[in-house]
Amino acid sequence: MWKLHFNFLRYQVAPVVASCAVRLSSSSSNEQRFHQHGFSWTRALAGILAGTGVVLACGLHQTVQMRSSLPVISQAEVAKHRSLKDGVWVTYKGGVYNITEFVAMHPGGDKIMLAAGGSLEPFWTLYAVHNQDHVLEMLSLYKIGELSAEDLKKQRDVKSSDPYSSDPERHPVLRPNSLKPFTAEPPPEILSDSYITPSVFFFKRNHLPVPQVDPASYRLHVEGLPGGVLTLSLEDLKTRFPKHTVTATLQCAGNRRSEMNKVRQVKGLNWGIAAIGNATWSGAKLRDVLLAAGYGPDVTQWARHVQFEGLDKDITGTAYGASIPIGKAVSEDGDVLLAYEMNGEDLPADHGFPVRVVVPGIVGARNVKWLGKITVSTEESSSHWQQNDYKGFSPGTDWDTVDYKSAPAIQELPVQSAITTPAEGTVIDRSAEMLTVKGYAWSGGGREVIRVDVSLDGGKTWQVAQLKSSDKEEDPQTPPPLGRAWAWKLWEITVPLPPEAQELEIICKAVDNSYNMQPDTFAPIWNLRGVLSNAWHRVKVKISEDNGEE
Amino acid sequence: MWKLHFNFLRYQVAPVVASCAVRLSSSSSNEQRFHQHGFSWTRALAGILAGTGVVLACGLHQTVQMRSSLPVISQAEVAKHRSLKDGVWVTYKGGVYNITEFVAMHPGGDKIMLAAGGSLEPFWTLYAVHNQDHVLEMLSLYKIGELSAEDLKKQRDVKSSDPYSSDPERHPVLRPNSLKPFTAEPPPEILSDSYITPSVFFFKRNHLPVPQVDPASYRLHVEGLPGGVLTLSLEDLKTRFPKHTVTATLQCAGNRRSEMNKVRQVKGLNWGIAAIGNATWSGAKLRDVLLAAGYGPDVTQWARHVQFEGLDKDITGTAYGASIPIGKAVSEDGDVLLAYEMNGEDLPADHGFPVRVVVPGIVGARNVKWLGKITVSTEESSSHWQQNDYKGFSPGTDWDTVDYKSAPAIQELPVQSAITTPAEGTVIDRSAEMLTVKGYAWSGGGREVIRVDVSLDGGKTWQVAQLKSSDKEEDPQTPPPLGRAWAWKLWEITVPLPPEAQELEIICKAVDNSYNMQPDTFAPIWNLRGVLSNAWHRVKVKISEDNGEE
Repeated sequence: MWKLHFNFLRYQVAPVVASCAVRLSSSSSNEQRFHQHGFSWTRALAGILAGTGVVLACGLHQTVQMRSSLPVISQAEVAKHRSLKDGVWVTYKGGVYNITEFVAMHPGGDKIMLAAGGSLEPFWTLYAVHNQDHVLEMLSLYKIGELSAEDLKKQRDVKSSDPYSSDPERHPVLRPNSLKPFTAEPPPEILSDSYITPSVFFFKRNHLPVPQVDPASYRLHVEGLPGGVLTLSLEDLKTRFPKHTVTATLQCAGNRRSEMNKVRQVKGLNWGIAAIGNATWSGAKLRDVLLAAGYGPDVTQWARHVQFEGLDKDITGTAYGASIPIGKAVSEDGDVLLAYEMNGEDLPADHGFPVRVVVPGIVGARNVKWLGKITVSTEESSSHWQQNDYKGFSPGTDWDTVDYKSAPAIQELPVQSAITTPAEGTVIDRSAEMLTVKGYAWSGGGREVIRVDVSLDGGKTWQVAQLKSSDKEEDPQTPPPLGRAWAWKLWEITVPLPPEAQELEIICKAVDNSYNMQPDTFAPIWNLRGVLSNAWHRVKVKISEDNGEE
Repeated sequence: MWKLHFNFLRYQVAPVVASCAVRLSSSSSNEQRFHQHGFSWTRALAGILAGTGVVLACGLHQTVQMRSSLPVISQAEVAKHRSLKDGVWVTYKGGVYNITEFVAMHPGGDKIMLAAGGSLEPFWTLYAVHNQDHVLEMLSLYKIGELSAEDLKKQRDVKSSDPYSSDPERHPVLRPNSLKPFTAEPPPEILSDSYITPSVFFFKRNHLPVPQVDPASYRLHVEGLPGGVLTLSLEDLKTRFPKHTVTATLQCAGNRRSEMNKVRQVKGLNWGIAAIGNATWSGAKLRDVLLAAGYGPDVTQWARHVQFEGLDKDITGTAYGASIPIGKAVSEDGDVLLAYEMNGEDLPADHGFPVRVVVPGIVGARNVKWLGKITVSTEESSSHWQQNDYKGFSPGTDWDTVDYKSAPAIQELPVQSAITTPAEGTVIDRSAEMLTVKGYAWSGGGREVIRVDVSLDGGKTWQVAQLKSSDKEEDPQTPPPLGRAWAWKLWEITVPLPPEAQELEIICKAVDNSYNMQPDTFAPIWNLRGVLSNAWHRVKVKISEDNGEE
């Protein structure tokens, strides 16, 4: 799912500029560039903004021209255009569009080709992020004709049902980032109110409609091992393998993306600081299941990855998928679970009922929900989400230059922390005298957070917060085993209000036991997908002098 | 070893202020504070600097007074003062000093008590960092008498030999940070000239004199396991266990301390960017030796740490010591070696001949040289270097407030990188048109460096450097096994000189495969010992227009 705000201007203007610029300078070397999947369009746009008004005027003229007196085209003709070679045509609400030039720019990658030669509507129902005005405006630039009335009637007769209609009810306190698929986070202050995040408030991040799974007929298939396919029922999972319980924090790769968005627009859900939660998970160890399925020393020689496939599927039947390195999967200390309980109860529908993978210390995206298949392999998952998403890039890499193969799939996450209270813009009464600041801190890979520094003066001076590993007043302080600190720490600090200050810039930053620290600012870690957003969290509050006087 | 520049003023003035301030305000609550091991002396000093000239004048007066007409004291009398209760007296070059008040402030901790009741000279010969003017000035504040002529003659008759006299020769290109013990680093540009750092140029960091070890009579003792003590000769190590070779980068915890020093003075050797090197180490696996000594599942139940003791000892017989977590020591993938070769040859004397520990991914200080004893234990090493050194603290923690127990001993190091060429202040001829920037990048814990970003404009824009894992033109790019990336990457990038710029601020920052990144600046990671100094490396160069004109 992608938000397209920033790139709208580029997409809207670029094709127009392209054909127009070719006319204006057809003898220059620019021509070829413009047709290389938009490689240089950003530069072309920069040129326009720098003042080549002629080109822009030409572009607008052409847009108007394209919308008038378009031919009628049959569905049969549209269906012939299903490749870059033949052109890529689609229909939408009775219009026919030649989107060949747009294919390379599609934020969702090659998936757009699934719609080639047919109607966009069912895909846009599935990926509801498309239902925005600027997407429609962008599409309008590619219009080449009107679908014949007969074919349009046929299309409308095929009733498209909403694949999200059986999604579960959610708690109204959640703040959705998108409804289809459903993604939402709780208000931040809820996070620090409870060491274990209640399931109902735990952030939701679905990629597809929630599948309806009958626990009685549920089967998990384990493939790729010498013994052939092992098929397990839910009952098998619960009775044939010891039940293990692990308290682990899961965090979305895009947590805190909204802060990175303020530097420069990125593509992705505009998460606040609460796309993270800490729960108790129970289930069979993946290690135990793999051993039962035939994993052994001979497999160690060749196996590199364990792939997971969800039962959540798009309309083409493609399931959500991800993989993790085999070492993590089979390690005794890796604590990877095939979980059937969250916080002591059956998994909720939004969290993967009846079985999900929980990979402690690893980015949320690999913790596949509604688990249907496990495959031991020499290769990573080939899914879109493993190969062309959930990777980090340099701030200098943009959509024109990105090579997804050049970066490893995110697995372990970097050290993270945020302030859950007070909220940005809070006004504190001077008469309160003391201020309590609370938050969470966590690091990937089982690295324990050992310290959180808090500043009230924008980073000039720092104090050490108190760390908590439970809700008890007297924190037990039994440290987790080294390298297995899967759960976050909550932290708090109570400090006197600085006597002179009228505004405070509160900052927190965490340190883990590899002594890695959070970067200071977002611009240098900016990346086009807005993942790994872990610079210092900053919250400004005001101190009011009023009440004391009255 | 500690440098005391910054604290000199505090130490010099504080005791004087103490006694004086007590007189001036003996009825205030300050009195008690001043006697609590200097807890509030920093604040007292701040008060002085803010303008309480009376106190300062009083202090200077008292200093002069203390130096005149001092009594003659016998060695027998001095020897009675060996505790905080009875007072701590020492002698130095015929003077007698009551250093009771200084004990709590000694940067070297309780070790100062070893000198109580006797002469400082032999200790200061061993810890030559004391031989600086400001240390002598500080000492002079505590003078209470003159040693009797008879006892002074006796002391002088005991010829103190230099324990460093048998240290090996070193290459003159090395830049020493201290001579006794010997610590030195190569010129930075040497680092990026060779993927494997030649042993002779590899940074040296001794804590004590280099011990003379006869390889024929060398014995390694392995203790703490059910089978009793296992004693191994060098021949045993070489013949009874398979020989493994690992290419691993070692880095001193204090590498790049000089940059942190610019923020605010810290205590420690003023390392540049070259207290790091990459070598090929060969030896027996620690795991194999521990298994031979009786390590097994029963030991796993209770053992937590593996302690190492060097054959390098101070004059009291205390050996250098450190420990690592048992998980790292016994893991098949941990690759911990008892190394007897460095870069294909016998270990050099400065690097631990005949046997040292190499703990890949872990701070240099735990890679104990001249290894004499291994102890499997429930506890960490009790050595000074494990308990009261090599730990990281908040920038808000100072020598008055530091609690060494509150921080874990450094083991894995955070992600690091630096620019080896061009050097700071280089003038580049505009006619060169292109600029090549080179450096190194590494991360602790076996985390592979996946990207280095380079900026020429102080961090506004970034480009991705080319990573190298060998000296070959065509880098093989065979990635190390996940979690076992022990060796650094060299990197370089060649870029056009920006046409307008007259000065460039070049910056590099590395990212490892947990997507941890280096922090932007030093002030927020400042810590009183100046360790873990891994903020962005910045190098300023000038572009000269001259030569093109001439």
